[in-house]
Amino acid sequence: MSRRATVSRNFTTSSNWGEILNYRKIFNNLGIILLVEAALMVLPVIVAIAYREKTILYFLITMGFLAATGALFTHMKPQKESIYAREGYITVALAWLLMSLFGALPFFLSGSIPNYMDAFFETVSGFTTTGSTILSDIESLPRSILFWRAFTHFIGGMGILVFVIAIIPKAEGQAIHIMRAEVPGPTVGKLVSKIKASARILYAIYIGMTAVLVMLLYFGPSHMPMFESITNAFATAGTGGFCVLNNSIEGYHSHYAEIVIGIFMMLFGVNFNLYYLILKKRAGQALKDEELRWYLSTVAVATLIIGLDLMFTKFSPADAFRLSFFQVSSIISTTGFSSTDFDIWPTLSKVILILLMFIGGCSGSTGGGMKVSRIAVVFKSSARSIRKAVNPRSVETIKLNGRPVDEETVNGIIGYFAMFVLLTAFSVFIVSFEGKGLDTSSTAVFACINNVGPGLAGVGPSGNFSHFSLLSKAVLSFDMLAGRLELIPVFMFFTRYMIPRKTS
Amino acid sequence: MSRRATVSRNFTTSSNWGEILNYRKIFNNLGIILLVEAALMVLPVIVAIAYREKTILYFLITMGFLAATGALFTHMKPQKESIYAREGYITVALAWLLMSLFGALPFFLSGSIPNYMDAFFETVSGFTTTGSTILSDIESLPRSILFWRAFTHFIGGMGILVFVIAIIPKAEGQAIHIMRAEVPGPTVGKLVSKIKASARILYAIYIGMTAVLVMLLYFGPSHMPMFESITNAFATAGTGGFCVLNNSIEGYHSHYAEIVIGIFMMLFGVNFNLYYLILKKRAGQALKDEELRWYLSTVAVATLIIGLDLMFTKFSPADAFRLSFFQVSSIISTTGFSSTDFDIWPTLSKVILILLMFIGGCSGSTGGGMKVSRIAVVFKSSARSIRKAVNPRSVETIKLNGRPVDEETVNGIIGYFAMFVLLTAFSVFIVSFEGKGLDTSSTAVFACINNVGPGLAGVGPSGNFSHFSLLSKAVLSFDMLAGRLELIPVFMFFTRYMIPRKTS
Repeated sequence: MSRRATVSRNFTTSSNWGEILNYRKIFNNLGIILLVEAALMVLPVIVAIAYREKTILYFLITMGFLAATGALFTHMKPQKESIYAREGYITVALAWLLMSLFGALPFFLSGSIPNYMDAFFETVSGFTTTGSTILSDIESLPRSILFWRAFTHFIGGMGILVFVIAIIPKAEGQAIHIMRAEVPGPTVGKLVSKIKASARILYAIYIGMTAVLVMLLYFGPSHMPMFESITNAFATAGTGGFCVLNNSIEGYHSHYAEIVIGIFMMLFGVNFNLYYLILKKRAGQALKDEELRWYLSTVAVATLIIGLDLMFTKFSPADAFRLSFFQVSSIISTTGFSSTDFDIWPTLSKVILILLMFIGGCSGSTGGGMKVSRIAVVFKSSARSIRKAVNPRSVETIKLNGRPVDEETVNGIIGYFAMFVLLTAFSVFIVSFEGKGLDTSSTAVFACINNVGPGLAGVGPSGNFSHFSLLSKAVLSFDMLAGRLELIPVFMFFTRYMIPRKTS
Repeated sequence: MSRRATVSRNFTTSSNWGEILNYRKIFNNLGIILLVEAALMVLPVIVAIAYREKTILYFLITMGFLAATGALFTHMKPQKESIYAREGYITVALAWLLMSLFGALPFFLSGSIPNYMDAFFETVSGFTTTGSTILSDIESLPRSILFWRAFTHFIGGMGILVFVIAIIPKAEGQAIHIMRAEVPGPTVGKLVSKIKASARILYAIYIGMTAVLVMLLYFGPSHMPMFESITNAFATAGTGGFCVLNNSIEGYHSHYAEIVIGIFMMLFGVNFNLYYLILKKRAGQALKDEELRWYLSTVAVATLIIGLDLMFTKFSPADAFRLSFFQVSSIISTTGFSSTDFDIWPTLSKVILILLMFIGGCSGSTGGGMKVSRIAVVFKSSARSIRKAVNPRSVETIKLNGRPVDEETVNGIIGYFAMFVLLTAFSVFIVSFEGKGLDTSSTAVFACINNVGPGLAGVGPSGNFSHFSLLSKAVLSFDMLAGRLELIPVFMFFTRYMIPRKTS
């Protein structure tokens, strides 16, 4: 049977998919998402008008494409409304892909990024809130383009908040996620109306925090212009890391901006449900959250060690700890801003930064990486294995926040960890075909799969990703999407072709 | 309660250990092992006599210490014979530790390695069949010392064959190992007599293959002297990698020796039960073994890619594929011999070698690493997770060799993988305190935890481990033992102090 035949069979019979894939509903949802993207592009258009940039044309063309495709897709009325987790996964993966394919157009059409694959890479990097760039001279670009670039982070961050809160907990048969129920917050409801209410509350928190940051940057002693206050706040909120300056936050030469952004990067890496709790005047409960405590402890310990490491090289104590805190906060939250070229830091500091990349933010935040709670579960499970070797008859459940985590979830999380490591290893293998140095090849993958942004050496704060081949850029784009969407949705596309399937 | 009080309580009451730890039996077993080590030291004594080296004195002193301690320990008669898995684990971990502590004495007393910690590192590296060395000028050492150094590999390899075949399958409550029953061979018996019979058969195969290799090296066109044929065969059989030449196998400038040793390294990385099957004239069944097929396929693919990578740099096709095969075989079997300085190879080749380090040999071989079968299970489980996301109601068991692997074992193996990665990451973190380069720090750990030997850069084929601090050497020694003894036994020592314990 030819491949084509296999594909059509999967779409038209229920033999392998359990039930017919509700693809009409998928297209319908995607259509709505593309229309939203078209609407969101009004903002860069306003920026283009304000600065009298001719890029306005390219945004309008893109909006036209988006509106046309969106209208076409929404025209496809679903026969039934019910969807399964797999439809949710496929929608999410396709949404990020399509938004990036269209979102790349303004970069490409305006000539800001003359190569479409580069423009696509930059846009994937934006929507996945990674922040890896192929640009070397950022400051030469039109303001509306820079605005759109930073705005993709903000949009991506909003998307992720809905994805992790509304779609993941409804997935059947998947146990790779810390169950929502364990984090008290606005997400315990099961009805659509409750999800919408949850999303609204989270968006309010997200936009509110961003607005506070804009104010702090604009009115603060750094006197950052409004345009840059907004774009930097977007990049911080989404834990993205695109800056409008070539030297990232270092370019402002402002300790105030460095500290404020440092604190906000850390805050955007925290589970948003905890902010909801604080709003509900249950701050005490929020502060007792175990994942938060691991997260803050990790930040404190990493800042201390790197600070000391820098002090022993050439920095004054004040500089050492300020730079250390900023970079630790930037990397663990997977934002990727830099306030200095950390590629020239000593090995110990660099190793810690690499480890922080993989830890990442808290679950339910805009941060990437494997997430603090997953790492905590893997640690606890390892410790339990050792205790079990000592006392084989012991029965012990793993707890998070004092509540037991069921075994299926524990195994799912460890499986996720293993899958993440395998994908990292495989990606480094493919990227190393370039023949670039070991540091560059490996940290390029680490930075992309964990949605951090910059890596070390050739992809360090002073480098960029433009020198990679088409193949590497495709692999790195895949890694950004896979890391952002928690692996499964992105892998699903390859299931039918790459992995031998067994019927149930 | 003080730590001392806690310790004694653990040894005298049954509250935390379920039952009293049968430590008399442990000491008794250790005593026997030390007496065996004393007896084995007769061989280097004979070498010392043959070459009229005064090192004979230091071997005799060590034998005296071993005999005295062994007699003291065996004097401790166990009250009961029954032991649990934990006693087996503790015996094994202590055996490797004590054998190394005593085995380091000839190096230290003779002044060959003037620093005792270095001598200990070298001996741990020997008995764990790692092959990481702190020596820079190997050729200047006395022959009896070089013999003992290579002989530790041979002894370590024998020890591992018994450990993985006799002790691991009896462990309760542990599911990190592919169950013995799945590999048909001499190990299905459950009685002590059967284990002894199994061990005898495996030893016969091991010694027989080593003897064949000695003959091939001695009588072959490379005209390797008998002394070097024997020591190189020891280092190959144990998949260790200590050579008597400073430039490892490269020093022989013999394509014949390179190819013969290349093939034998690969062979010693194969599950020994398969050789038993071949002896039983069931070669067809052996060749159908799934792990063997993954192993040989990996060798073939890695050899091909590295060969092409080398061809595109500066090597002739013949050289490229010969060097490639030798190094692939050396690294996947975790031997660590080198026939060229692969540290100067292109990045792609180096990345493949690093990946091969972690894959390692087959289960039931003398090779280290995570083992091919474990990696296969982690891959299959990851693929299943993705299929399960597509069809949540599917029920699918993971198969190895066509037989289902029970879920507890699958989860145990993935947990092992995660624990291995965590220990690797933590060790790199500690070793990076040295301030050496990223390549050196990370591959030093990779080479030790996987029992390979050399890494890259500062610990590459032209470097050695002498420049590391005491702390790093301790961590790397721990990693060698942890990797060799499959993590759990070595971690168990720290359980009571480092990990909060919960009673069942």
